[in-house]
Amino acid sequence: MSAAISPLAPKSYPELPAIEGVSFATSAAGIKYQGRTDVLLVALAKGTEAAGVYTKSKCPSAPVDWCREALKSGKARALVVNSGNANAFTGKAGKETVKKTADIAAKALGCKPKEIALASTGVIGEPLDARKFDGPLQKAAKGLKSGPWIDAARAIMTTDTYPKLATATAKIDGVEVTINGIAKGAGMIAPDMATMLSFIFTDAPIAASALKTLLSKGTETSFNAITVDSDTSTSDTLILFATGAAAKRGAPKIKTATDKRLKHFKAALNDVLLDLAYQVVRDGEGARHFVAVTVAGAKSAASAKKIAKSVADSPLLKTAIAGEDANWGRVVAAVGKAGEPADRDKLSISFGGIRVAHKGMRDPAYDEKIVSDYMKGQDIDIRIDLGIGKGEFTVWTCDLTKEYVEINGDYRS
Amino acid sequence: MSAAISPLAPKSYPELPAIEGVSFATSAAGIKYQGRTDVLLVALAKGTEAAGVYTKSKCPSAPVDWCREALKSGKARALVVNSGNANAFTGKAGKETVKKTADIAAKALGCKPKEIALASTGVIGEPLDARKFDGPLQKAAKGLKSGPWIDAARAIMTTDTYPKLATATAKIDGVEVTINGIAKGAGMIAPDMATMLSFIFTDAPIAASALKTLLSKGTETSFNAITVDSDTSTSDTLILFATGAAAKRGAPKIKTATDKRLKHFKAALNDVLLDLAYQVVRDGEGARHFVAVTVAGAKSAASAKKIAKSVADSPLLKTAIAGEDANWGRVVAAVGKAGEPADRDKLSISFGGIRVAHKGMRDPAYDEKIVSDYMKGQDIDIRIDLGIGKGEFTVWTCDLTKEYVEINGDYRS
Repeated sequence: MSAAISPLAPKSYPELPAIEGVSFATSAAGIKYQGRTDVLLVALAKGTEAAGVYTKSKCPSAPVDWCREALKSGKARALVVNSGNANAFTGKAGKETVKKTADIAAKALGCKPKEIALASTGVIGEPLDARKFDGPLQKAAKGLKSGPWIDAARAIMTTDTYPKLATATAKIDGVEVTINGIAKGAGMIAPDMATMLSFIFTDAPIAASALKTLLSKGTETSFNAITVDSDTSTSDTLILFATGAAAKRGAPKIKTATDKRLKHFKAALNDVLLDLAYQVVRDGEGARHFVAVTVAGAKSAASAKKIAKSVADSPLLKTAIAGEDANWGRVVAAVGKAGEPADRDKLSISFGGIRVAHKGMRDPAYDEKIVSDYMKGQDIDIRIDLGIGKGEFTVWTCDLTKEYVEINGDYRS
Repeated sequence: MSAAISPLAPKSYPELPAIEGVSFATSAAGIKYQGRTDVLLVALAKGTEAAGVYTKSKCPSAPVDWCREALKSGKARALVVNSGNANAFTGKAGKETVKKTADIAAKALGCKPKEIALASTGVIGEPLDARKFDGPLQKAAKGLKSGPWIDAARAIMTTDTYPKLATATAKIDGVEVTINGIAKGAGMIAPDMATMLSFIFTDAPIAASALKTLLSKGTETSFNAITVDSDTSTSDTLILFATGAAAKRGAPKIKTATDKRLKHFKAALNDVLLDLAYQVVRDGEGARHFVAVTVAGAKSAASAKKIAKSVADSPLLKTAIAGEDANWGRVVAAVGKAGEPADRDKLSISFGGIRVAHKGMRDPAYDEKIVSDYMKGQDIDIRIDLGIGKGEFTVWTCDLTKEYVEINGDYRS
């Protein structure tokens, strides 16, 4: 946890309402950090449906392997998260640790180990001793409460400078349900996965298979559309838990993601996902600017995404933004290296709506002074129009600053 | 041109011998830099064969477009290079500039414009006025000399902190021939292309089609195996010129790259390419460590290359190396994100021959102190053994430092 809060942090944190069927407690197990909580236990009502999306890394962490297997049933009774140690690349010992941790939590809550979802975040390769959880988890199980949610968000932070929370309500067939989400981020953040750790909770009665579809779709344009440093983590985990408690209030039981009664819920879920994804980027390590890169006029949305990602991951462009320089030449270079269809002589580029390049060359009308002033702001919009099709996609990222280098030059020590 | 010379710079520069059929002169045209040379004119003997490889960028510069077309004939009589302006993304004006520049050079040397190879490096998107060359090129044409080659290497520098030169000799059928090369690099350097600018000259009598094959092959394991920042330039150009002057001394005329008499020459050419590629990495913007990433035991060499590139491009690993931290967990993460076949539980990782991770977990025998001492050195060898096949590849890179961010935060201003 860095001392200074990101200048891009929200001015205030939302107060999340209680969700029936969800209670939690945090604990300070001293895994790596001292003087703060580092373990989160969330208990879930019987019958809770769950679905997760995980890192596409070929070297996933032990907890990711565990969740992939355990949540196949679509059921969960609890979630245990720790910060400070990722339990990744820890071999057999790592597997034993997740098993023991699930045993401890299951015993404390009176359920089966396979009903426990697990997630760990922090240093890779360091053995994580399951005994660290023995005591803290039992104590937490006795102190379960329905809030405040900011405590849950704080316990899972690593190099995050602020806790990340979001909430929304939606109506399903006229019955209001709530969606709460927490996330952690900071570094090792890149698209094509669910970012580091994020957990979403709802009282809506939705089956796990439907949750999985909603989550996969919603992730594509939120967590999978952000990048801090192009580095995909070994531990990325996003799980959506639905306690179904709203059924008592008349909410219909939803079996499939295509059910039309989910329209409102889908939109609210996507809002929560996008809100949390933004917060992760705004707390990117060393971030000073929040950058939206929109590619329009591409051959397809998939092509637009590849180009937007190439631009958003370009170290040269990211350092230029840190230097508050509208270096659109580097945008051109990043478009060029993406390997996707593009025609240099049809390309237009705007910063904050100010067109700087048009049809393959500098816009003769553009005034460097106005663009320079714009670059001094915190939020930077870059729009690239390829002019060869109708594909569009937006990727969100932050700048690459000296602070990023500093934070990551001595993270382990 | 940065004030401070890279700590990874060579202790001395090689003195390159004259090559019959090659003469050159430099000039200070004041294109961007003041008080230094920024134009290089190389005149080539009649009959010189030439072959080039260029950026794979979809937004190539005007000079790249020009060379692709002009050098189709396999013949060249001159090369004009300028630093300070890349003449990239400059539209029709850029095309006219290359045409006018070729006209001026052709007139000054008494050859055809299509026999002039052109290359530009520097800022993207800034119009380049061909009149800048009118005067300097004529003056240069009157002062052509056969050395010193360091003057040629200096004229093409941008943010490079030292000139890059290499030389080798080889025997073709018993006759000694010479190969001289110069390069520039620094930023916007990534594999899958020929880096920024490099020019190789030889007196060997080799046909352009054979040169092309030799160059393409040699590039794969040299310029295409280095990365400074994963950003592919719009202007990358590597051209090999063969004057054929050695034919007078009895060297046989070589028509095809498969000619067995080329064995020695191929090796010498590859040495020059690799030497220059190393020098480019060692002068990577802000570089403090030179890093070799070798991936062995992969499914194939192509797979090994993708994984090595993923590791060498990881900002998290590169900042850890800047911080002299043997953060092998980030190596694991970078292997995992490459998307290539890998088995976490068979993975071994060594730094400088010291094994830190073995079979999917930390090597129990490894001593952090010894590895930490190793990381304080300038040259860092990282070896990753996947243990699932026989594919091997090495990629060279440098660390990511605060100086990189600083250099690129205010390059344009």
